[in-house]
Amino acid sequence: MKTMGISELALVNPKSFPHPKANELASGADDILANADLYTCLADAVADCELVIGTSARNRDLPLQLLDPKQAAAKAVALSQSAKVAVVFGREQSGLTNEELSHCHHHLTIPSHPDYSSLNLAAAVQVVCYECRMAQLTLEPSSPQEITHDRYATAEELEYFIEHLKEVLIETNFLFPETPKRLVPRLRRLAYRFHLENMELRILRGILTSVQRTLKNK
Amino acid sequence: MKTMGISELALVNPKSFPHPKANELASGADDILANADLYTCLADAVADCELVIGTSARNRDLPLQLLDPKQAAAKAVALSQSAKVAVVFGREQSGLTNEELSHCHHHLTIPSHPDYSSLNLAAAVQVVCYECRMAQLTLEPSSPQEITHDRYATAEELEYFIEHLKEVLIETNFLFPETPKRLVPRLRRLAYRFHLENMELRILRGILTSVQRTLKNK
Repeated sequence: MKTMGISELALVNPKSFPHPKANELASGADDILANADLYTCLADAVADCELVIGTSARNRDLPLQLLDPKQAAAKAVALSQSAKVAVVFGREQSGLTNEELSHCHHHLTIPSHPDYSSLNLAAAVQVVCYECRMAQLTLEPSSPQEITHDRYATAEELEYFIEHLKEVLIETNFLFPETPKRLVPRLRRLAYRFHLENMELRILRGILTSVQRTLKNK
Repeated sequence: MKTMGISELALVNPKSFPHPKANELASGADDILANADLYTCLADAVADCELVIGTSARNRDLPLQLLDPKQAAAKAVALSQSAKVAVVFGREQSGLTNEELSHCHHHLTIPSHPDYSSLNLAAAVQVVCYECRMAQLTLEPSSPQEITHDRYATAEELEYFIEHLKEVLIETNFLFPETPKRLVPRLRRLAYRFHLENMELRILRGILTSVQRTLKNK
C-alpha cells in the first residue's frame, strides 16, 4: 500500500500484532504498521467513513453493486479528497463474512480467471491499491472536480438509522425480533447501497420519528 | 498469473529450478511451474514473440516509449489474439539490465509513489497480469462480469410507491398536503436515485402497509 501512496491501515482483531514477521515483510514500510489503528469490530473501524468498499469473491448471497477495482478506486479516490473512505479486505482464507459485507456501500471483486480465481490477500491488496494510485494520478489537482452534494452519511450514522428503522418495524409488526430472518441484512444492504447523503438520512429518520409519535398518540 | 488467466511462464537462468519452495508458494498453480520453459538468455526466450514489453523502474538510460500497466496490457492482449507476446520481469533486487531492456519493444513502468517506489517482483507481476486480465475481459463481448440482480422497478411502480409513501407521510403528520414544499420532489429524487429492484420496492411497500395497518388498529 505504501508503494501506491496509501498510508492509513486499520486492523480488526489481528491474530497477533505487532509481530516481528510483519515488520520483516514490510521492509521499509514499518511506519505503516507502527501507525496502524486497532479495532475489535469492523463497524468501529469504519464508523467515520462516508464510503466503505468491501472486497469479495463473486456470487455472494446479497450482491450489492459489484465494482471492479478500477471502478471502486475511482469512487474511493474521488470521495477521499473530502471525506474518509475505507476499502475493506477479509481474511486470507475466508474473506469477509456476509455480516461484514453488509457494512459496505459497495462490493469490489477482482475479475480473476474462473478456473483459478482466488488471489492471496497481499496480491488483492496490491491490485486495489494500484488502481487507487492510478485514480489518484488522473485527478488533476487544479481541475475543479467538485461534486455538488451534501456530505454523505457516515457508517455510524447509517447504523443508528438501521437501529431506528428496526424499532419502527417492530412497533408496526413488520418485523418480529425473535424471527428476524433475512430482513435486517436486506434492509442494511439497501441502506448502504443507497449511499445516503446526510440530509436525506435526516429526512428518513424524521419520517421514522413521526410514525412513532403518531402511534403513541393514537 | 494463473488467477489472471495467464499460463505461459518462461524462466531465464533461474537460480534453482525446480525448487520445492516455489511449488509450495504456487499453491495449486504448480502446473504453471511444471510447464515453464527454461532459457539461458532473454533473447532466446522472446525469440518467437511479436511484441516484447519489459518492466522497468523509471528513468532508465534507454527510455523507450514508457507505458503504464494498462496501456501495456492493452497492446499485449490485443496482439496476443493473433501472435505471441511477452511481458518481461527482471530480478527481485535489480530488475532488468539495460541490455535486456534493449530486447523489448516497449518499457512498462508501474507509477508507484516516489517516496517508496519499489514494488517487489510478485506484486509487480500481479499488477501487470491483472491489467492483462482486464484488457482480455474488455475483448470478450460476453464476459462473465454480469451483475446478477433482480429486475429493476419500473417508473410506474416507482410512482405507485411514491404515492403510497405520501399517503403514509400524511397519516403520520410528516407531510401536510396543503404545504408540500420541497419534500415530495426530494423523496421522488431519492426513490429514483436508489434504482430500486422490484423485490426491494415490494419490501418498502410492505413496510408502508404495515404502518397503515398498525395505525388503523390502535
